[in-house]
Amino acid sequence: MLHLVKIGGEIIDNAHLLALFLKEFCALKGDKILIHGGGKTAGRLSKKMGIPPRMIEGRRITDLQTLDIVVMTYAGLINKTLTAKLQAMGCNALGLSGVDANLISARKRTVQTIDYGYVGDLNESSVHRSALEKLLYLKFVPVFCPITHDQKGGLLNTNADTIACALASALAGKHKVSLQYCFEKKGVLSNFEQEDSYFPKITFLEFQGLKKEKIVSQGMIPKLENAFEALGKGVDQVSIGHPAFLNHPKEKTILCL
Amino acid sequence: MLHLVKIGGEIIDNAHLLALFLKEFCALKGDKILIHGGGKTAGRLSKKMGIPPRMIEGRRITDLQTLDIVVMTYAGLINKTLTAKLQAMGCNALGLSGVDANLISARKRTVQTIDYGYVGDLNESSVHRSALEKLLYLKFVPVFCPITHDQKGGLLNTNADTIACALASALAGKHKVSLQYCFEKKGVLSNFEQEDSYFPKITFLEFQGLKKEKIVSQGMIPKLENAFEALGKGVDQVSIGHPAFLNHPKEKTILCL
Repeated sequence: MLHLVKIGGEIIDNAHLLALFLKEFCALKGDKILIHGGGKTAGRLSKKMGIPPRMIEGRRITDLQTLDIVVMTYAGLINKTLTAKLQAMGCNALGLSGVDANLISARKRTVQTIDYGYVGDLNESSVHRSALEKLLYLKFVPVFCPITHDQKGGLLNTNADTIACALASALAGKHKVSLQYCFEKKGVLSNFEQEDSYFPKITFLEFQGLKKEKIVSQGMIPKLENAFEALGKGVDQVSIGHPAFLNHPKEKTILCL
Repeated sequence: MLHLVKIGGEIIDNAHLLALFLKEFCALKGDKILIHGGGKTAGRLSKKMGIPPRMIEGRRITDLQTLDIVVMTYAGLINKTLTAKLQAMGCNALGLSGVDANLISARKRTVQTIDYGYVGDLNESSVHRSALEKLLYLKFVPVFCPITHDQKGGLLNTNADTIACALASALAGKHKVSLQYCFEKKGVLSNFEQEDSYFPKITFLEFQGLKKEKIVSQGMIPKLENAFEALGKGVDQVSIGHPAFLNHPKEKTILCL
């Protein structure tokens, strides 16, 4: 099994959760890939530099100054810190962005009602699978930050959940792929105030119902849409859960079509 | 011939020189590796964040805040910008730090009279040659930023000239290696005010004389010492010159033992 694991800012910003996650990630058997998001460092840096972060509907607007900040934070500080920690634990991590070896190219999002700025959208041909397979063949453990490029020299900020889905989908078919979205909860909760109220399983049909009933909340909707998209593209296992249960076959929300 | 080329801040900070350099770098035949320094971005960022850069004898003192800034700038912004530009020119660049794949480990400099902070010194076993050879075998073009790690999870700021020398030395013997230090001058100048006054050739003995006569200036001394060290360790060709002549066999200062 080829394991792809995505971690978000809630884990990166919490030293205890991060240590727990890294231990469990190192324990995963077989080839593996880590995809990390941003966390609060980029926002803090913007603030220190007097650049107020601009958000529309929960998404960061990436103007040129903000692009520099996310590249510095994601591809620089967070990516190299995670890679150094994994190396110290005996995991042969190789920090990457989508720019490196042209692994993930993207298109700058076209302006419709909102100009998101330097944000990259992915399509079916975004992931350069053979280059990634070469790195896996050499037993490196790729650690991806969510920065891509437009193949014309421009860098683009790309959603980390989307990157995780695109990488898993591109590798599916050729490999048996598991994709786990890791965050601070045990899974998709039916009651946000009860930590143990996670659904052990959600089908695509059930997801439609949960959206209607507003049981799944705003931020969770795109994450689950990404997850179901990966399943639809042939990824074998997709789940959402807590780092503590990364190596546990259940104890998380497992998604199925 | 395996080409290693090191560029400093004078080239990174000058759009015209950088474009010229990248064109010439892409034209180099055979396997190649780029090593880049920092430039003024780190200093500018420190200033914006209200952290005054601390220098002693021309060397940056790397406290924890400064370490974050150099990691963000070198491994993030500069490394990914250069890699994206090279990719756009058809060069299969792969941005790296010494952390990635444990390519370059270092030891935090011990405090003698000056505490340089989180600065990494290299030794004979710092470069993990076989991992680097695997990447070259796959026809990736490594682009190194001057960040290394202590193998205990800590990042270290390391002099880029030293990294270039260590990489070239580690690859020598197994490969025919050329190391070129690229900067804004045509070579080592005998008269700093005359651009064309570069020495076509300097031997190690001549270098000792030039130091005594103070013809080679402060910043050039460690650069030349690195260059001669590389020659001593079996690197086949070492030179210092302008990007315009990267592919020219002469028109630069060639160093010999």
